[in-house]
Amino acid sequence: MFVIITYDVGVKRVGKVCKKLKEYLTWSQNSVFEGQITKTLLLQCLDEIESIINPEVDSIYVYEVKNPNYINKTAYGVEKSFDDLFL
Amino acid sequence: MFVIITYDVGVKRVGKVCKKLKEYLTWSQNSVFEGQITKTLLLQCLDEIESIINPEVDSIYVYEVKNPNYINKTAYGVEKSFDDLFL
Repeated sequence: MFVIITYDVGVKRVGKVCKKLKEYLTWSQNSVFEGQITKTLLLQCLDEIESIINPEVDSIYVYEVKNPNYINKTAYGVEKSFDDLFL
Repeated sequence: MFVIITYDVGVKRVGKVCKKLKEYLTWSQNSVFEGQITKTLLLQCLDEIESIINPEVDSIYVYEVKNPNYINKTAYGVEKSFDDLFL
């Protein structure tokens, strides 16, 4: 399946969440990751994310599209690179 | 169709881009908007966004899913409200 994961977490946990998502998905932009992943790996990823976040203040959204052919991505302006995050 | 739009734009243009996207879609989290929209309105929205952004430094990603039934959203942790953006 194809997933888009967006996160809005406390500043102390941003680095950990970002690092964890990068193990499973491709960074897209700001606090957005995307990529193809199996259901099993997605559940494993989310288990690990849930152990990092504070569910009372942090927020993780997961958009799942079963067939990657059903989703189309278009970029306007520049394409951001992961390194831009840390400049 | 269902769309997710994420943006990474210069700080001077964040407010304008956010306000414009809010005319067409629902705010989801951070710099992410989502919602059902017709192709015509999406093109109109993107035309207006393109007149705001600086394409040399700003970045807008549009994920389109033709049938909203093909996409599923799950939230972990808290659901953010639009007002949180401005607190």
